Amino acid sequence: MARKRKKRVKQPGLPPGSLVYVGEAGAKPPLITVWDYDEAGLNEYQFTNVDDCVPFRNNQRVTWINVDGLTDVSIVEKLGVRYNLHPLVMEDILHTTQRPKIEEHDDFIYVVLRMIDFDSEKMQVGSEQVSFILTSENVLTFQESPGDVFGPVRDRLKGNKGRIRKLGPDYLLYALMDSLVDHYFFVLEKLGDKIEELEEHMLEQSAANLAHRLHELKRETIILRKSVWPLREAIGGLERLDTPLIKDSTKLFVRDMYDHTIQVIDTVESYRDLLAGMLEIYLASQSNRLNEVMKVLTIISTIFIPLTFIVGVYGMNFRNMPELEWSFGYPAVWIIMLMIAGGMVYFFRKKRWI
Amino acid sequence: MARKRKKRVKQPGLPPGSLVYVGEAGAKPPLITVWDYDEAGLNEYQFTNVDDCVPFRNNQRVTWINVDGLTDVSIVEKLGVRYNLHPLVMEDILHTTQRPKIEEHDDFIYVVLRMIDFDSEKMQVGSEQVSFILTSENVLTFQESPGDVFGPVRDRLKGNKGRIRKLGPDYLLYALMDSLVDHYFFVLEKLGDKIEELEEHMLEQSAANLAHRLHELKRETIILRKSVWPLREAIGGLERLDTPLIKDSTKLFVRDMYDHTIQVIDTVESYRDLLAGMLEIYLASQSNRLNEVMKVLTIISTIFIPLTFIVGVYGMNFRNMPELEWSFGYPAVWIIMLMIAGGMVYFFRKKRWI
Amino acid sequence: MARKRKKRVKQPGLPPGSLVYVGEAGAKPPLITVWDYDEAGLNEYQFTNVDDCVPFRNNQRVTWINVDGLTDVSIVEKLGVRYNLHPLVMEDILHTTQRPKIEEHDDFIYVVLRMIDFDSEKMQVGSEQVSFILTSENVLTFQESPGDVFGPVRDRLKGNKGRIRKLGPDYLLYALMDSLVDHYFFVLEKLGDKIEELEEHMLEQSAANLAHRLHELKRETIILRKSVWPLREAIGGLERLDTPLIKDSTKLFVRDMYDHTIQVIDTVESYRDLLAGMLEIYLASQSNRLNEVMKVLTIISTIFIPLTFIVGVYGMNFRNMPELEWSFGYPAVWIIMLMIAGGMVYFFRKKRWI
Amino acid sequence: MARKRKKRVKQPGLPPGSLVYVGEAGAKPPLITVWDYDEAGLNEYQFTNVDDCVPFRNNQRVTWINVDGLTDVSIVEKLGVRYNLHPLVMEDILHTTQRPKIEEHDDFIYVVLRMIDFDSEKMQVGSEQVSFILTSENVLTFQESPGDVFGPVRDRLKGNKGRIRKLGPDYLLYALMDSLVDHYFFVLEKLGDKIEELEEHMLEQSAANLAHRLHELKRETIILRKSVWPLREAIGGLERLDTPLIKDSTKLFVRDMYDHTIQVIDTVESYRDLLAGMLEIYLASQSNRLNEVMKVLTIISTIFIPLTFIVGVYGMNFRNMPELEWSFGYPAVWIIMLMIAGGMVYFFRKKRWI
Amino acid sequence: MARKRKKRVKQPGLPPGSLVYVGEAGAKPPLITVWDYDEAGLNEYQFTNVDDCVPFRNNQRVTWINVDGLTDVSIVEKLGVRYNLHPLVMEDILHTTQRPKIEEHDDFIYVVLRMIDFDSEKMQVGSEQVSFILTSENVLTFQESPGDVFGPVRDRLKGNKGRIRKLGPDYLLYALMDSLVDHYFFVLEKLGDKIEELEEHMLEQSAANLAHRLHELKRETIILRKSVWPLREAIGGLERLDTPLIKDSTKLFVRDMYDHTIQVIDTVESYRDLLAGMLEIYLASQSNRLNEVMKVLTIISTIFIPLTFIVGVYGMNFRNMPELEWSFGYPAVWIIMLMIAGGMVYFFRKKRWI
Repeated sequence: MARKRKKRVKQPGLPPGSLVYVGEAGAKPPLITVWDYDEAGLNEYQFTNVDDCVPFRNNQRVTWINVDGLTDVSIVEKLGVRYNLHPLVMEDILHTTQRPKIEEHDDFIYVVLRMIDFDSEKMQVGSEQVSFILTSENVLTFQESPGDVFGPVRDRLKGNKGRIRKLGPDYLLYALMDSLVDHYFFVLEKLGDKIEELEEHMLEQSAANLAHRLHELKRETIILRKSVWPLREAIGGLERLDTPLIKDSTKLFVRDMYDHTIQVIDTVESYRDLLAGMLEIYLASQSNRLNEVMKVLTIISTIFIPLTFIVGVYGMNFRNMPELEWSFGYPAVWIIMLMIAGGMVYFFRKKRWI
Repeated sequence: MARKRKKRVKQPGLPPGSLVYVGEAGAKPPLITVWDYDEAGLNEYQFTNVDDCVPFRNNQRVTWINVDGLTDVSIVEKLGVRYNLHPLVMEDILHTTQRPKIEEHDDFIYVVLRMIDFDSEKMQVGSEQVSFILTSENVLTFQESPGDVFGPVRDRLKGNKGRIRKLGPDYLLYALMDSLVDHYFFVLEKLGDKIEELEEHMLEQSAANLAHRLHELKRETIILRKSVWPLREAIGGLERLDTPLIKDSTKLFVRDMYDHTIQVIDTVESYRDLLAGMLEIYLASQSNRLNEVMKVLTIISTIFIPLTFIVGVYGMNFRNMPELEWSFGYPAVWIIMLMIAGGMVYFFRKKRWI
Repeated sequence: MARKRKKRVKQPGLPPGSLVYVGEAGAKPPLITVWDYDEAGLNEYQFTNVDDCVPFRNNQRVTWINVDGLTDVSIVEKLGVRYNLHPLVMEDILHTTQRPKIEEHDDFIYVVLRMIDFDSEKMQVGSEQVSFILTSENVLTFQESPGDVFGPVRDRLKGNKGRIRKLGPDYLLYALMDSLVDHYFFVLEKLGDKIEELEEHMLEQSAANLAHRLHELKRETIILRKSVWPLREAIGGLERLDTPLIKDSTKLFVRDMYDHTIQVIDTVESYRDLLAGMLEIYLASQSNRLNEVMKVLTIISTIFIPLTFIVGVYGMNFRNMPELEWSFGYPAVWIIMLMIAGGMVYFFRKKRWI
Repeated sequence: MARKRKKRVKQPGLPPGSLVYVGEAGAKPPLITVWDYDEAGLNEYQFTNVDDCVPFRNNQRVTWINVDGLTDVSIVEKLGVRYNLHPLVMEDILHTTQRPKIEEHDDFIYVVLRMIDFDSEKMQVGSEQVSFILTSENVLTFQESPGDVFGPVRDRLKGNKGRIRKLGPDYLLYALMDSLVDHYFFVLEKLGDKIEELEEHMLEQSAANLAHRLHELKRETIILRKSVWPLREAIGGLERLDTPLIKDSTKLFVRDMYDHTIQVIDTVESYRDLLAGMLEIYLASQSNRLNEVMKVLTIISTIFIPLTFIVGVYGMNFRNMPELEWSFGYPAVWIIMLMIAGGMVYFFRKKRWI
Repeated sequence: MARKRKKRVKQPGLPPGSLVYVGEAGAKPPLITVWDYDEAGLNEYQFTNVDDCVPFRNNQRVTWINVDGLTDVSIVEKLGVRYNLHPLVMEDILHTTQRPKIEEHDDFIYVVLRMIDFDSEKMQVGSEQVSFILTSENVLTFQESPGDVFGPVRDRLKGNKGRIRKLGPDYLLYALMDSLVDHYFFVLEKLGDKIEELEEHMLEQSAANLAHRLHELKRETIILRKSVWPLREAIGGLERLDTPLIKDSTKLFVRDMYDHTIQVIDTVESYRDLLAGMLEIYLASQSNRLNEVMKVLTIISTIFIPLTFIVGVYGMNFRNMPELEWSFGYPAVWIIMLMIAGGMVYFFRKKRWI
């Protein structure tokens, strides 16, 4: 998936509703995958020509049309025209920097979410926009690039596991969205592992670049946060929607998914708090270590600097220095110096420095 | 109870409503305890076979069925089928990472809460999911592992203390939940003791690992916080619920319990503030101590470094150094050095360093 | 008044509504004071036996029954039975760790507030729970220990000042609550004085334990905050209450009291901000002082360390050191050293250190 | 205007509604100014006796009665009785520590606001309470001391500029309040100038007392904030008021004034953010400077301390030191010392310290 | 565009609704541009005399009248009179420090927004007020100075691209506002680039003025934030408006624009978080570097200071120092010194300092 910050600005001079893809141009041509099923059976097709999808529109079976890659604007346009999509919806599908949201239109529901991924190596959260269109018989999904998190749904469709083949397109939409939300937990797991790892390293002394890694994690948390709050709004909106396109039995599942998004938010917020706390502790331990270093320096310096002065005194070459002539002069200086050193040590003990 | 962070992610490929337990596999087999009572008498049974619970379902007495351990998924499944539970509810019972919540269904109420415990040694808040099902005659509870906070309720049931045996299953549900919420206070007491303990140590100088202990307490507070806010929502939701399953007389008790959860939240938030304040003070005292150390070093250094230079001067071996020949040279140097030292001391006095 | 943190946990095994006092056992036995008045006259009685209060219940005059000390549970119980109080209310009266709140019951209103006090010496905010019961003719108050803030109300009752004797028990309740809320301002005044005092000391250099005093003030602010937010809710709830027990004319006074609680909250929040700001400034001044200390050390060290090296060079005992033989060697070294010192001073001037 | 913190506490023993002025006693006696006008003409009077205002009450012209100074309680009392004010309103007029608010009564509206001023010298925000009473024909204003921000309104009344003389007392009330709100912008301007001034000084090195000035500005911002938030509520309340006392045409102006208060709040909040940011930068620059100082010390020390050791070695007086006899000993030591110094410099270069 | 902080205060003595321009006086005279179009064709005119606009008011075509420069108050006044604008609206057009807002009037809608720009060199966000008036056939826009972000709209009008010429003035209003909101993204892009640039520099050691640049970016973010939050309110208000002036088909576009403003807010808030995080990391790295510097100093000092003392001892000139006479004295001192140095190195190794 792509890295987070994209140029969002439209080309100047274009009216709203202009169909221009703003993401990176993919190497491969877009691929259209069609899953056409009912309880009795399932057919899977792969097309590169959008016109091949026409027969599936009103065939009394549930049809899932998935478009991987949005570089060919005409695909979105043709599908849009066929499914009677509003020009602004088509624009939003292509402008892949949308905030997650849900829109109810006359004969379809448009949902846009962000599919995220976490690269443990680079510690980067990547994200990709996925658009869903739900009509009375079909679900259309648009992804920026191949590779997604819908594998489990495909397995269930193929294996006819659970209810998925028995229920309508609204349940398929739910299943796909749920799969996407579940992946947030997966990413949070990974992020949580990284945080725990850092937390353990914090206790070690040689944590030189800890602060930078903390910052990286924090930055990714900020990015995640920007995704998950609107996610909650979008899914909450879906739950509250009063439309025949979504059956009441499906609503229960949507509510369940909504609970999951709240859990995602709770977790992200906890991570934020944890990371903030860790940085504070890092600073505290830095300052603690500095104190320790300074104490060592101060103890050594304050003991030896006066002594060095004393031996300097008797290294002077004045002709008239009576102490130098005394036979007990040298041992006497040693005794004085030991007393001074002892006094210093006593002073530091009293201050609890050693 | 188990440690906080669990892997939440479902196995891919499983439809929602799949019954797979995500917690740690316990050593012991699940144990089913049945308390069947009315005002006249109480019977207690222990089963390992779920089918033994069948007769208690509609026997005109209040029945509390408690399941300790969720490793045997079939127990939840069979009870679920018998009590007509929605598949998503069964899934939530087994996915023991739910956010505390309440759900009203047609003929039962589902409540999921977190039972917490505090290990004073490790300074860790552990938690365990407890699911409650309230039907018109029964209360079902599902716990992850043996050992709970319901002892007081059992004592009251056995001893026929208070109203508990006279009132219906809704009061039993309240009594169990209240017992669980009361345990939050117990945990908060312990946490508060730890905080006070640290607060006293903060004044001592040798608080080397104080920052880390503060961090640990803070982390546990963050974890607690994640539990208590949804707790309030859940219990508030129970109070607002308009259902014949909960009698008005019980509602008063639920309101009382709701007040308690708000008190729990207030306390957790105060702890957060206190801990934040303590860390700041710790940093301030660190910086204060560094200042003190540096002052000692600076005073000693700035007094003796110039003096050491002077004695060095008269330790030079130049042939032509007239001062060395003067008979009063040596005492003169001492007088000059004492004056310099005195001047330094005066300077430090003026700066209020000594 | 008692110190803030009390053990809240009920004895296990007790049903809700159990009447057990959780506060400290007082030395003195509870004292019941009865003020029975109408516009024409006022009688004051002191009882230790709760049965003596019976005749005042329905005597067509306003009666204020005040209980000082809750160690004798039977007093609360007997009064509770006589006034038909709900068991949970009786429990709340005795569990003196309630959050301030208001509850409307069928024939009485229950208000629980916290009466606070500030010990300027120890810098501690102490608090005590006060419960109010308003019935159609009586006001009952329950305090944990003798000594309260109701003196002004008593004076007005005795002196028949203002409207108090002309109006009913709802006005008496208001007068008592208002007296309690007014005492918050008194406590805030004291706290504000302490803060101002600290603010002035911050400018002095010898503010060694300032950080700890700041922390103490902050802690007390956190405790206060925990009291005042629910106070607002409680009094706001009283204002919104739709009950014949509180006359409309009294509602105006309650609204006025509500404005006061908001002022209390504003002040507490300002104190929080101020204290946070003061700590920041303390840290800034600490760091400023450290800079100053370090500059002195660095200036002295960097000037004399090179000079000491030079004099060390000519203190070496090599046979073959030509400089030592030069007649102008000694003055030349002095000139070089003065130049080095001058260069250093120039460097520090340029850096604006001196 | 007076400094911010006033003793708010009422004298104990006084019933609510007691008329006692809590502010500072002014030197001058209160002055009553009456402006009586309609479109045709305007008369201005100054009285010290409140009874002189009687004829203006119902004379079919708009009358503005302004009281400067509240030390003479009887003035408020007499006006209050004449205009049928509620005792609590009279008390609020005299207790000059009210939170800005608006109260609708049967035949008048009571508005209380704070008039602020900023003393650039002392960097102090002072404030004074202004109470407004709007009846069907009159506007009463009560100020604590002479001197106000209503000059522009007086000019417009005198000069018959704009609509003010054509419209009723509600427009006059608006004009006075708007004048007061506009003065907030004036104060904010001054505060903003101070902040910008500090911001520029932050870049200079000798910003010793910057932290304290930042703190002072911050404290004043906190005080301002405490005034402006309730200001918004009050004016918003006035806009929503459904009363014949305020005409719809005036409502439009009130809405405009409401927009201004929101702008005031935005600005205060921005200042808060800016000041917080400036303190952080100050700390960062402090720590930066410390680093720089320490680097200089460390470079000088680490270069010369080893060299000083070496020259010390050859200053020892052992009989048997072969190096001293070598003819090339002295230059050899110099070469070694230069190499050590060069190595140190290389090391510091590598570390990018110099 | 002008720099951010303008004097807002009106001249005292002026009634509300007075038409005085508060911005900077421009050099050029105001220019009026009129675009008059329908689907069939478009005419563009430039006037300096406002009376030339009269014929376009009711000519059955859509007319966009744009005024660049507000120094000539009479232009606004004449247009205002002709279009029946409320005096407060005219005042708001001229007082170019309005908070973004929308106002519905009887026969027109008034929208005021801020057009922003970012000067990458100075890192300053500049802004300019743009007022929009929408009537049934016309759109009036008022800008402070020439140069705006409406180029794309003009291109579409000229080129007859998209729907713009087919739809009414409400769509034109939307198109202009959308163009303005889009420019926020453009500015955010630039700001984001600056932040990323700084983020990379943070890793380098020589980031002396990083803190100040961070502060500058933060300050600009605070200024931006002050603009974007009311922007959301304004556009949200436009969406909710129930007026025949805006057609339902246009409402859809407004909703789309509203989503964009939320995205703008999300981004600004993320930047705030990022910048706060970066400053923390900067401080952490500063403190880290200080630790490193101090370690080097401490290691060198603690190794050589004791050694220097020892060589000083044997540089003393006492007559009676037996060690000096020993033939193996000199090598013995070397051995002792090497042992001490070795011990120190071992100690530092154990402490993990080297």
